[in-house]
Amino acid sequence: MLYAPPIARLLEELERLPGIGPKSAQRIAYYILRSDEEVAGRLAASLLEVKSAIHFCPRCFDFAEAELCEVCADPERDTTLLCVVEEPRDVVAIERTGEFRGLYHVLGGVISPMDGIGPEQLRVRELLDRVSGGSVTEVVVATNTTVEGETTALYLARMLKPLGLKVTRIASGLPVGGDLEYADEVTLGRALEARREL
Amino acid sequence: MLYAPPIARLLEELERLPGIGPKSAQRIAYYILRSDEEVAGRLAASLLEVKSAIHFCPRCFDFAEAELCEVCADPERDTTLLCVVEEPRDVVAIERTGEFRGLYHVLGGVISPMDGIGPEQLRVRELLDRVSGGSVTEVVVATNTTVEGETTALYLARMLKPLGLKVTRIASGLPVGGDLEYADEVTLGRALEARREL
Repeated sequence: MLYAPPIARLLEELERLPGIGPKSAQRIAYYILRSDEEVAGRLAASLLEVKSAIHFCPRCFDFAEAELCEVCADPERDTTLLCVVEEPRDVVAIERTGEFRGLYHVLGGVISPMDGIGPEQLRVRELLDRVSGGSVTEVVVATNTTVEGETTALYLARMLKPLGLKVTRIASGLPVGGDLEYADEVTLGRALEARREL
Repeated sequence: MLYAPPIARLLEELERLPGIGPKSAQRIAYYILRSDEEVAGRLAASLLEVKSAIHFCPRCFDFAEAELCEVCADPERDTTLLCVVEEPRDVVAIERTGEFRGLYHVLGGVISPMDGIGPEQLRVRELLDRVSGGSVTEVVVATNTTVEGETTALYLARMLKPLGLKVTRIASGLPVGGDLEYADEVTLGRALEARREL
């Protein structure tokens, strides 16, 4: 036996985490073993706290601590603009830009027939209920620019346009600071197609 | 505020871990949030258990659950052979080879004047006490083949040889399956110098 059982159990739990292989797990476990008791204590407490204190916002399905998430609870946000994203991490990415003042709707994934995920497995029903309820005039579809993300965007456009909503898609093109030479053909093609007058 | 406070606290604790940056921390936190309560519970419990159940073996200074570590407690091990390593992870690496049947001594680091670490900060005193006590006849110095590791090996040889002990060093050379072409000059030089008759 290479490790004492309590160390082996910690390694097993650490290796379940995404992106943590045996080497990283060992490094983390030995760091915990070498550190003050507090380090393990605070990490353990924050793991338990996050599970007891955080739930899904019943409106946008982002993570929330209060009844509603902070964005939904903020009276300053533009309630006519709704941005649809795949996952809570995408909300963080967009909030970081400081460019968006509307509300969000987190689908919880994308349509992917290969993985058996259709609109019923996502929060599409809740999205339709939400926009039919009222003040939203434009839905920005900000799913990833993968095949599944694009499929989901097209599907949502087909569902939402008949309701009289403006449906937009985030732009594809060259990353800022990007070199034409190194762009893949599909991205460069999209950037040309979506050219704007200066 | 990008994250609800309990999520922000978990991210902060995760980012303290070695090899975990903001992106990995977010990925892990969101995995925990999406998973069953048990996942966080088991990880938290194993973090606390490892700190309460594991201590240093008073003989070799590896991590131990019982009074002595498993290697020191094993009557089948060869007590004439002592392998000196830097850290507990090195014991795991050597045990994995299945080639060593002696005992270990974990220094807890290497001599590194730049970092203010001298023999007094390591378990050198304990090593000398241990070998002067009795049955050890050969000390294999298996510190890393870094400048500090080599310095430490030379220092230990100087301390241990006058006690009538055989002091050996693990071999340096080409990794098995390694290509001569890609070996660095120092390694290749060492491999030539330490050539053996076939």
